Amino acid sequence: MKYVRFLWKNEVACGILSGDRINILQGDIFSEHTPTDHIVGLNEVKLLAPCKPSKAVCIGLNYRDHAEEMKSELPKEPLMFLKPSSALNDPDGEVCYPSISNNLHHEAELAVVIGKTSRHVKAAQADEYIFGYTCANDVTARDIQKGDGQWTRGKGFDTFLPLGPCIETELDPHTLEIKGWVNDELRQSSNTNNLIFSVPYLVEFVSKVMTLYPGDVILTGTPSGVGPMQVGDKVTVEIAGIGSLQNHIVAECE
Amino acid sequence: MKYVRFLWKNEVACGILSGDRINILQGDIFSEHTPTDHIVGLNEVKLLAPCKPSKAVCIGLNYRDHAEEMKSELPKEPLMFLKPSSALNDPDGEVCYPSISNNLHHEAELAVVIGKTSRHVKAAQADEYIFGYTCANDVTARDIQKGDGQWTRGKGFDTFLPLGPCIETELDPHTLEIKGWVNDELRQSSNTNNLIFSVPYLVEFVSKVMTLYPGDVILTGTPSGVGPMQVGDKVTVEIAGIGSLQNHIVAECE
Repeated sequence: MKYVRFLWKNEVACGILSGDRINILQGDIFSEHTPTDHIVGLNEVKLLAPCKPSKAVCIGLNYRDHAEEMKSELPKEPLMFLKPSSALNDPDGEVCYPSISNNLHHEAELAVVIGKTSRHVKAAQADEYIFGYTCANDVTARDIQKGDGQWTRGKGFDTFLPLGPCIETELDPHTLEIKGWVNDELRQSSNTNNLIFSVPYLVEFVSKVMTLYPGDVILTGTPSGVGPMQVGDKVTVEIAGIGSLQNHIVAECE
Repeated sequence: MKYVRFLWKNEVACGILSGDRINILQGDIFSEHTPTDHIVGLNEVKLLAPCKPSKAVCIGLNYRDHAEEMKSELPKEPLMFLKPSSALNDPDGEVCYPSISNNLHHEAELAVVIGKTSRHVKAAQADEYIFGYTCANDVTARDIQKGDGQWTRGKGFDTFLPLGPCIETELDPHTLEIKGWVNDELRQSSNTNNLIFSVPYLVEFVSKVMTLYPGDVILTGTPSGVGPMQVGDKVTVEIAGIGSLQNHIVAECE
């Protein structure tokens, strides 16, 4: 099922998407919820990021091809970093190009959405703790990332974490085509079968360090083909079975 | 004034501490709140971390003496990283020594507590956005920090962010004695007049990247003298005008 979060009549609501129709839900998607009688059209609402993570844990260099293009050795274990919750952005939202960067990159990623409080979860049990999957763009000011050494600032600006368009709950995360577009140009094209560390292993690895809460996300890394975006560009992350996440690059917002 | 957050009769409450008495408040300390008629003794409550940050932004290498002991060049601008909100710990709370580390360090730090939503705040206006100051321990698995290169995992384990005991709202942050103890041994002893980047500058620098929310904290860096802690140790961060934050090192918690 495809869960969406959206604005409708100036209120935030959740629902289940089928085709271009949304069945509005009552309750919280991560606990008790039931369908209502309300059906609205997808074109009548403004989609929001499908969850509000308390944290976004990201995995660096988790596709062989991307590690090669970044001239990095293959990692022996997952390399973790965080994007702040303040970076969250919506489908069709504007990504603000910081005035202190000259090299803003897209990174198309599969995001795991956690459904239950997760601490010391074993890989074999990971599925019980995963709610579903969504598309993410790990927007990165590459020059700042490299200059700082620590990746927090270059990846942590407001608007740098677009998520969406929906959370798909019925999906094998290990055979998914993943693509990244800038305008009409296909920049990234890979398959999650190229992941170095699998989704269940990542849930075990991360939850051994930090407790994950419902709505938290793990961004599983990006394939090769990352590259620059300019003000005015449209950037799209497309994952088979989930959908397309589209955002627009604008000059720095005050 | 010294604001505290605590458990009293199994409920979370906030109050103002004077000596060993707490005047319980009604409302939220970051918005509307008023004193009640209830006064309780400090020894009748269990203190909690004085705020619940949505994020903890940390500044690396912000004391000259610590940069030297880490054999790092002095930074030209603040080096940012994040500790996750899941790492929050209380005064007198247990810090869990991860089984995958062999070198757990204390880092005594002054933490700035944000009072108002802060975006693109200028240093000259920073005081209007700062609620107050508390003590922090930026607990660090030094071996993991160095092995990963990215500092997120080594500094992000559950329990690795003790904050407290109170938020002091009337304080000049630039002339404060700061000390770190392990049991009865004084390990760190410095003064915030050794900060490379001042508190108002940090608020400007960080809020240019990410929006800060009421209750968010900026950890301003640690002076020289960081060193190992063992299971069974008591670790104390003491800052003049704020008080003492004490925690206990225990074996890894499941």
